[in-house]
Amino acid sequence: MRSQVVIVGAGPAGLMLGRLLELAGVETVIVERKSAEYVLGRIRAGVLEQGSMALMDRAQAGRRMHEEGLIHQGVELSFDGASQRVDFEALIGRHVMVYGQTEVTRDLMAARQATTIYEAGDVALHDFDGKPSVTYVKDGVTQRIDCNFIAGCDGYHGVARASVPAAALTTFERVYPFGWLGVLVDRPPVAHELIYAHHERGFALCSQRSPSRSRYYVQVPTDERIENWSDDRFWDELRLRLNPAAAEALKTGPSIEKSIAPLRSFVAEPLRFGRLFLAGDAAHIVPPTGAKGLNLAMSDVAVLAEALIEHFVERSDAGIDGYSSKVLDRIWKAERFSWWMTSLLHTFPETGAFGRRIQRAEFDYLAGSVAAQQSLAENYTGLPL
Amino acid sequence: MRSQVVIVGAGPAGLMLGRLLELAGVETVIVERKSAEYVLGRIRAGVLEQGSMALMDRAQAGRRMHEEGLIHQGVELSFDGASQRVDFEALIGRHVMVYGQTEVTRDLMAARQATTIYEAGDVALHDFDGKPSVTYVKDGVTQRIDCNFIAGCDGYHGVARASVPAAALTTFERVYPFGWLGVLVDRPPVAHELIYAHHERGFALCSQRSPSRSRYYVQVPTDERIENWSDDRFWDELRLRLNPAAAEALKTGPSIEKSIAPLRSFVAEPLRFGRLFLAGDAAHIVPPTGAKGLNLAMSDVAVLAEALIEHFVERSDAGIDGYSSKVLDRIWKAERFSWWMTSLLHTFPETGAFGRRIQRAEFDYLAGSVAAQQSLAENYTGLPL
Repeated sequence: MRSQVVIVGAGPAGLMLGRLLELAGVETVIVERKSAEYVLGRIRAGVLEQGSMALMDRAQAGRRMHEEGLIHQGVELSFDGASQRVDFEALIGRHVMVYGQTEVTRDLMAARQATTIYEAGDVALHDFDGKPSVTYVKDGVTQRIDCNFIAGCDGYHGVARASVPAAALTTFERVYPFGWLGVLVDRPPVAHELIYAHHERGFALCSQRSPSRSRYYVQVPTDERIENWSDDRFWDELRLRLNPAAAEALKTGPSIEKSIAPLRSFVAEPLRFGRLFLAGDAAHIVPPTGAKGLNLAMSDVAVLAEALIEHFVERSDAGIDGYSSKVLDRIWKAERFSWWMTSLLHTFPETGAFGRRIQRAEFDYLAGSVAAQQSLAENYTGLPL
Repeated sequence: MRSQVVIVGAGPAGLMLGRLLELAGVETVIVERKSAEYVLGRIRAGVLEQGSMALMDRAQAGRRMHEEGLIHQGVELSFDGASQRVDFEALIGRHVMVYGQTEVTRDLMAARQATTIYEAGDVALHDFDGKPSVTYVKDGVTQRIDCNFIAGCDGYHGVARASVPAAALTTFERVYPFGWLGVLVDRPPVAHELIYAHHERGFALCSQRSPSRSRYYVQVPTDERIENWSDDRFWDELRLRLNPAAAEALKTGPSIEKSIAPLRSFVAEPLRFGRLFLAGDAAHIVPPTGAKGLNLAMSDVAVLAEALIEHFVERSDAGIDGYSSKVLDRIWKAERFSWWMTSLLHTFPETGAFGRRIQRAEFDYLAGSVAAQQSLAENYTGLPL
């Protein structure tokens, strides 16, 4: 088989890249290790920046998002009982949309015309400094796709980044000493907007997927075990960390999903190796505070799609040559924001009493400063490319 | 002897407090451990916020400041060769004034009408929960001043905070793993405004006292010895850390003062104990990045003077009762800003490669964001009380 571009990974990054390319007449094949059902079963983030919303429209996959997505004009921050709404619309005239990553994936899958090979085993990348190809095993037979370019959109644990010689790659990492215990529940959200709460017992987040489905999180130690958390214990702990009004309004119910995710900041550099590009979680991980992961992946592939279209349609390699440094500039700013928002809202045993007071001072300053709120708002709704 | 208020310490905080009180008809005696010459010999910060400038006027001690002080409408930040001016005047319509702390002290000393007792030995504070008094030894004789209130303005190492029972005091501290090696030189400054420079070799600051006298700093390890730093070595190191244009413009000369100061964040709470108040460095220390130390002391005593005048003139204790929480709110915000600016611009061995990139991303974000620059500007020129 032959294709102009082989995309490894059928998550939202790979699917969006494929969709933007096929609309421009560039051939793509997507190779995915798992089944479509498995991909759609992954519970992930659900806050889209305005740029990501626009990209769904460009991909001609935005119809259901506009019908079902919830526009949020701000977020609420609470800190040891004090509370501050940050009104994006009033501060900078922008907003975000709550629309689950699973739904984004579903819509992009449905829109896709070209081939996606699911349940492709032993995916391997070859010769991306010369004549690239991707091989995989399907139904016991090894297949090979020759191509001009490979896009590695297969996540943090994927094969794409692992295929790059270690000496060619610089990685940056911070592992946080805690994770998020998340619960999905078929109950209306506690508030119309998201609530990010700092409490001395730890961070909590009230998020949502739809008007009837809510997603809640509490900060737990890295080594916490999910078996220790009955639904009752989770709801009790969450209530303790919210302001009394929110705790009272909380509608609890049986969890339909419960999991613990570690928090990590990670960046690989560069993001181009000959004819291989990395995008999305294959290239970088942010802690989920600030909801940047999916949005960063979207902006990566927006730039990559433009670069590849330039190559095939305009016969210019300027976009390809500039891809890595262009997206890394934005990636690092989003890494900074995610690190900052994580640092503001979680409890860090190692920073001591001085560190806790600095967090509180940051909240108090934010609550009283239009400039500081604008800064949060422009980062949360998405910095320009 | 008797006085309504005894002020311990004749630095700028004590002298400003005394001046504001005497202008309102409140009796003060200042008791200072050192001589006036010694106090004037201390080389300290030299950037006044607009609020501090206004206070000098209120103290009727601002004439020379307006004649000789240099108005700075912005600062320059540089980061590994990149450079960004932050234009306070354009961003938020405010500015700062470069006028040495020594000059502030001199002007306040000259304005003062009431008694200052210099070279007072063995200063001790008594019974500030009941009928307060201060004793000291002068010319071999122990003297005692009975008073209504004591103001502890005697700095971090002073007797005032040390007189408070440990159980009544909560302290917060961060000691940074480096200090500032500073050199004073009779040469015109390298630039009209201050330059705060981050370099992989460490932080550097180009500051100034007057059009003909400059003050330069480089970050050094905490345990560095001044003997290791000839003037030549200092100038060479400074040049390495500045952008080429600044390095070339640098006018060097023999140092007229050279010293190493450690960097520390420190806050004591509360700041009132019966009839004793703490203000200035006795209450808090900031690292010098951001020039908040003198200005915080000024805003402390502005609030304290108002509270004491309310007590004596209006017979209301509302100001006194609110002093501690009112000034601590502003102190913590200045602590946060000083910590943030220190964190942005210094090298921290312990934060690793990820931390260094976060610093760079913060600089890049700042360089491209009006909101972020406004936030820096409003903090640097002084948050409202």
